[in-house]
Parts: sequence; C-alpha cells; structure tokens
Amino acid sequence: VERITVIGLGLIGGSLGLALKAAKLPNIEIVGYDTDTIAAVDARRLGAVDKTEPTLQRATADAGMVILATPIVAMRQVMEEIASGLRENCIVTDTASTKSLVTEWAGQLLPPHVSFVGGHPMAGKETAGIANADAKLFAGKAYCVVPSPNATESAVKLVAGVAHLIGAQPLFIDAHEHDRYVAAVSHLPLVLSSALFSLVRGSPAWPELAALASSGFRDLTRLASGDPELSHDICLTNREAIIHWLERMVEELSRYRELLAESQEEELFKLFTRAQLDRDTYMAAGPPTRTEVTRDVPDLGEQLTALFVGERLARRAREMGKLFSEPPSGGRTSPKVDGRAPEKRHRR
Amino acid sequence: VERITVIGLGLIGGSLGLALKAAKLPNIEIVGYDTDTIAAVDARRLGAVDKTEPTLQRATADAGMVILATPIVAMRQVMEEIASGLRENCIVTDTASTKSLVTEWAGQLLPPHVSFVGGHPMAGKETAGIANADAKLFAGKAYCVVPSPNATESAVKLVAGVAHLIGAQPLFIDAHEHDRYVAAVSHLPLVLSSALFSLVRGSPAWPELAALASSGFRDLTRLASGDPELSHDICLTNREAIIHWLERMVEELSRYRELLAESQEEELFKLFTRAQLDRDTYMAAGPPTRTEVTRDVPDLGEQLTALFVGERLARRAREMGKLFSEPPSGGRTSPKVDGRAPEKRHRR
Repeated sequence: VERITVIGLGLIGGSLGLALKAAKLPNIEIVGYDTDTIAAVDARRLGAVDKTEPTLQRATADAGMVILATPIVAMRQVMEEIASGLRENCIVTDTASTKSLVTEWAGQLLPPHVSFVGGHPMAGKETAGIANADAKLFAGKAYCVVPSPNATESAVKLVAGVAHLIGAQPLFIDAHEHDRYVAAVSHLPLVLSSALFSLVRGSPAWPELAALASSGFRDLTRLASGDPELSHDICLTNREAIIHWLERMVEELSRYRELLAESQEEELFKLFTRAQLDRDTYMAAGPPTRTEVTRDVPDLGEQLTALFVGERLARRAREMGKLFSEPPSGGRTSPKVDGRAPEKRHRR
Repeated sequence: VERITVIGLGLIGGSLGLALKAAKLPNIEIVGYDTDTIAAVDARRLGAVDKTEPTLQRATADAGMVILATPIVAMRQVMEEIASGLRENCIVTDTASTKSLVTEWAGQLLPPHVSFVGGHPMAGKETAGIANADAKLFAGKAYCVVPSPNATESAVKLVAGVAHLIGAQPLFIDAHEHDRYVAAVSHLPLVLSSALFSLVRGSPAWPELAALASSGFRDLTRLASGDPELSHDICLTNREAIIHWLERMVEELSRYRELLAESQEEELFKLFTRAQLDRDTYMAAGPPTRTEVTRDVPDLGEQLTALFVGERLARRAREMGKLFSEPPSGGRTSPKVDGRAPEKRHRR
C-alpha cells in the first residue's frame, strides 16, 4: 500500500483528501496530520483521510507523496521537521497561494533524494476549515504545477496526475511567474475587497450604507470574509508583486477619477463599454482549455501506483550508479501492479 | 380600472411589470411603453404588461401612476414630453440609480398638480434587458423612496406601497443623502470592478492571467459586465460623490500599500482580521429590517385603488377650496371599490 500524506487538514487539505478518496485509488492510503487534533478527528469522520498520525514524523516517514496544505508561513517549519525522515524519492508538494518562497525553502531544507514540485489549486472559499471541505472544490479549476529545479520528470507528472485526478487542470508554470500572475488575479482582488469593506464600514454613515448595500457590494467584498491568516501570509510572501499591482490599481482608479473630474464623458463610456465587451468574451470562453501535457499525465490509480514505484526504483538506481540492477529495498513495500513488475512499467 | 404605466421596459421596468402583475391587483391595468418596439412586444409576450401604447403621451395620459424606468439621462426628456398630458394628481415615480438630478428635473418639468416621489430599487443584474426581467428581482431588497418637496403624503405612501407589494423594503431617504450613500456601496464597487477588469485585461500577460483567474477575480469583476450605458449615466449624474469615494478608496489602497512596503505585518493582519469579523457580522445581520413606516403602507390592491381614488379626490377638493363637496370629474373614471364610495375610504 502506497501512502499519500496530507499535512494540514483545513479547507484545502480536507478537500484534497476527500477528492483523492473519491477517486478510490487502489493500494493508496490517505494519511492526514494536523496540529489541531479536532481537525484531525473531523477529517477522519468526514472520510477525508483513511487515518491520521499523532506526529508529523510518523505521518510522513513512509509516504510516497507528502502534500503540505498548512498556512504558507508554517510550511518552512514543517519542511524542517520532516526533512530528515522522508524516504528516498519521496515527492513533496504543497498548496500554498504563493510559490517563490516555498520553492526556495524546499531547496534549502529538503534532502536531495526528495523531489519538490510546488502546487497551487486555483480554488477556494471564503469559509475556511475542514467543515467546509468539498471533494468537488477543484473540479474544472486550474491547478498550478511548479517544478523545483531538482524535481524529476516523473515527480512532476505525478503531481500533475493528482491535479488531473481530482478534476483540475494542471498548468505548468515557473514560481516567480506564478507569483506575479496571481498577484494580479487573486491577491489584488483580495486586497481590494478588504479595503473596500474597511473603507465603507469605517464611515460614520455605516448603518445607512449597510441598509442600502445590495448584491454588488456583497460580491465585491466577499473576499474580505476570507481567512485573515491566509490573506496575511499571501501579503508576506508575495509583497513586491502585490505592491506592484496595488500601485497600478491606484493609477487605474486615478484615471477614472480624472475622467470624471474633467467630464470626459465619451472616454468614460468607452472604458465601460470596452470592459463589458472584454469581460463577456472572457466569461464566454469558460475555464482554461486542457494543455497538451495533461493528456500525458497518469489519470488512474493504477498508473499512480506504478509511477510511485517506478520512480522510486529509478531514482534509487541512478543514485546507485547502476540501472535497474537493484531490487527495491527490502523494508519498503514493492508492490506489483496487475502482475507486472514495476520496473517494466517504468521503462515504458 | 386604474392604470399604472411603466415607461422603459428593460430589466428594471420589465421586472417591475412582472412583479406588479404577479400581485394580481384588482382593477389595475399595467400599461407599458418603450421606444424599442421589440422590447414592447417582448414585455407583452412575457406578461410584464397588460398592454403597450405606441406613444408616450397615450401611455401616460390616463395613468394614476407613471413609473419611469428608462436610462437616467433619458428621464429628463420623458418628463418634458409627458408633463402637459399628465392627469390631475397623477403620481410620477422613477427607478433611477441616482436621485438628485431626477428630483430636480421633476421639480422643473412636471406640473404642480402631479406628485413626484423618486424611487430606487437596490436590485439589479449585470444582464440587462426585458429578457432577463424577473418578478422576484426586488424580493427582500431595499427600495429607496425619495419624496420630492411637493409630493403629497399619500403619494409617498403609495410609492412605498408599491415597493412593499413587490416584496421590497421601502427606505425613506433624502435625494442628496441617497446619492452620497449609493456612491459608496454601489457606484464605487461598479467603478472598482470595471477598473480591475480593465487593468488586468490590459496586461500583456492576459492569456496567462485569464488561465489563472478563479472565482475571486470573476466575482470582483462581475459589475464590469453591467450595462455600460447605466454605468455611464450613473457617473454623469453622481459625479461628485463618486469622485469623493474614489479618492477615499485610493487613500485606503495606498494605506495597504504602505503597510506592505514598510513590512507592518501586525497592522496588516489586524486590518484583515477586522474586515473579516465586521463583514461576517454584517452578513449575519441579513437584509435591513422593516422600518416602522412600512406597516403603515397599503399592501393590497384594493387599498392601492382606494388610495389612487381618494388622493385624486382630496387634491381636487383642496384645489377647489372646498372639502368633498365636488363630485369626481365626469370625464375621468370614478370607480367604486367593493361597492363603497371612494370618498368614504379616503376619510378613514
């Protein structure tokens, strides 16, 4: 039995567990860990994990894949604590909303025999916690796959395969590029939402404003109800890109302000019309189309298992300096898949 | 049969028609008019009006109540065109998103024997047009009632009664106050939404940004898909208040920017936490509670008709300088309600 361990059983970790369990992977056990023991109990009760372990070390020591789904700033310490216990060729991935620092930490802290492949499901809710976990949270959503420099090709494919398995669209992207892009489409909206709510809420006329506020105000301020810890982590770990986009947003708003102040009615009308047309086009296009590479990723539990096993063998073989001449280590599982030797599948 | 005329059969006018028809008012005929004859045909077909008239004058000449639901900037001309043909004690109301200018126009253009009571249902959709009209659009929403200086008390009650009848919450408010408030909760979000979309759409990295954008970006930019004519009209007719709130929003964003730039992490965390708590409180409170005065408004078709009739008589009597000694004018309808003379109901 191969083990996938989810560290951090909140909304994202819990939803990942539920989605993986829903895929009914044969020979795969989903193990969970959370410092919050109540969350751990809930995760078991909700069926997001097969079991939980009482310590980080026990949860991760035998895992073929470790998924870090804790708050971003906690990931550094988790990496430190699990690094020495990770087995050879373990694949470590994460779900952090920013990727540069996490990738940097992985490079510094994880041992070279481990492949780190960052991940970021472009899905969320403003309601945090395991209680809001949902197996379908990732369906149809983009899932950024951010390989670290030392990640093996099959580790990258495996993480993309997991994304695919849970219904998401793997999108391969560089960590810095990722952070600049999500600053625009995810973090700027977050700050806008929070700033808009704070501004209006802070008005002495708030009771009247609240009575008049309708769906527009509620939609625009929805992200202000998001987990403040997450918002804070995002700001800390993507500071420069967010500052950049905030400055551009201030410029854009000042442009609207100027047009209003100068009564440039025609220009204003053009702006609104252009935005409407472009947004309607964007909305009509639907979610991102599947990239070519996603057809190449495993989408079945069998292949997942085979890849786990094959990867482990291949890495071991490379490190031993000889190809396929070493059998899998005795203490660890060496499952066969459909009666075929894992070596054979790896060579494919 | 008393006639309520809806001028402008778009999303709001059409929804009002549907909602009024759904109330199955006895002895009330809903008449529609739109310069767009296709919209007029659709309104009849969808049952938003009992009939349409081919000219503004014919649609409004016999109406007890005229509801202007055209674009804001068109209202001035409509008032000019219908003013001379409005019958004595006709009640004119509107649905414009801004109220100061419309109220000013009414004061200048409508004859003194007409009561103007502004209205603004705090409801909408980003999809315009009669095809998107919905009888339940106003259910549970605030409906601003903005009496003009010369409006009679019963005209105000009647407009509030209509709001109540279609499921909304009448909120009595002064025109200038209204405009300052909706600039914050409605027009600022609109400009923010459009500016955010324009900014991100204008990036050279737009294809990648679009692939990464998720529900947060879509929600925050929803209002950018709104009718550009409406957005433009709003900006033209509420310029100063919108400029005021845009400037405050720029200050607020600059504050977030400063905190980021100066690494004031604790302050940022406090801001996000405060916003989350306050928004959750706001959302939990639900829609505005019914104001005392709404219990005092008619909520039945019979009362509506009685008020129409009673009001007409009372005004006429006052103008004649004698109370109830004059019978209703022969040419106009003088319906009885449930066999009771309208005078009697008026005295209530």
